[in-house]
Amino acid sequence: MHILPPALDDLIEAFGALPGVGPKTAERYAYFILRNDKHTAGKLSDALTQLHDNIGYCKKTFALVEKGKEFSDLYTDHSRNKKIIAVVAEPFDLVALEKTNEYKGTYHVLGGLISPIDGIGPEQLHIRELMQRVTEDEVEEIILATNAGVEGESTALYIQQQLRDLPVRITRLARGLPVGVDLEYADQITLSRALEGRQSI
Amino acid sequence: MHILPPALDDLIEAFGALPGVGPKTAERYAYFILRNDKHTAGKLSDALTQLHDNIGYCKKTFALVEKGKEFSDLYTDHSRNKKIIAVVAEPFDLVALEKTNEYKGTYHVLGGLISPIDGIGPEQLHIRELMQRVTEDEVEEIILATNAGVEGESTALYIQQQLRDLPVRITRLARGLPVGVDLEYADQITLSRALEGRQSI
Repeated sequence: MHILPPALDDLIEAFGALPGVGPKTAERYAYFILRNDKHTAGKLSDALTQLHDNIGYCKKTFALVEKGKEFSDLYTDHSRNKKIIAVVAEPFDLVALEKTNEYKGTYHVLGGLISPIDGIGPEQLHIRELMQRVTEDEVEEIILATNAGVEGESTALYIQQQLRDLPVRITRLARGLPVGVDLEYADQITLSRALEGRQSI
Repeated sequence: MHILPPALDDLIEAFGALPGVGPKTAERYAYFILRNDKHTAGKLSDALTQLHDNIGYCKKTFALVEKGKEFSDLYTDHSRNKKIIAVVAEPFDLVALEKTNEYKGTYHVLGGLISPIDGIGPEQLHIRELMQRVTEDEVEEIILATNAGVEGESTALYIQQQLRDLPVRITRLARGLPVGVDLEYADQITLSRALEGRQSI
């Protein structure tokens, strides 16, 4: 016996494939779509259909760009300083940096992190292309903006070693107390890093 | 300057229309769709497109059914007792009751609750059809399974008044301590209801 019609079960199942969406949330989304007119469903459906065909990668930075566009605006724009490169793991990581409105350099998306368990070695990442950019654009500073986990740290270390012989300054984002967090609530590792990285005033 | 390609922005915006989905969650869903192959996107897109055209309402219970089907399995199935009706506000409410595997009566979906603020009066709900069923199917018990909020309670009261002159037993779901909740953690209203509804053992 069907409690719900198959078309609705299909939609609940499809929503359930999204990350972090359990059966209850999937039902909630599906019921919302059902209660609203076909326009809401159509808008989401169209956006889904068009996604893969309309997205490409910047040939320099490997950031996401409109299909057919060779380079990202974040590279070609004249206000961007091509001599500074922030190296990030995934295309979405640069959105966070971009939203600070403070960074005026360019980006380089690695396309992942070195992870021997998952069979991802340095040659699968866009590290060779990073080396080329360093020479071509006479880069002065590389900011390694990978996450602080094991994979992020080892990828950063690998890139650092590869860049050893090039005349480029290598930096990492500062680790320390987040703004608004009290000393008593900070975790030990963050606090250790904040101590190590203390600055004269 | 576009940080993300328009096709991706469109998808993030469309996901953001779902209930309880903020910009971060919408980005997470969109990036998940992008990382996966077109098949995942296609499956969700198809389910969305097909939804409205393949769903109808049961002519008796107003539960959701496959398009073209006149009555819900939950009504026509021979094992269901048509002399007991659980009255619920929305089509999804019966799913919860159905999952208990305890209830063998039928359902009646009101299609909402009486709410003067939103301009929803008794005539917009399927209350007249409920009266007809009571007579037609010689119903013996009506279980008012609307939520405990103001609208749920007033809708239940209204239906109770309408059924006054008919020879039918009217019940409500028991309010009391949920299984697994200790006395000391129960809220006052629930505890008052549990006291009121205490049973001899």
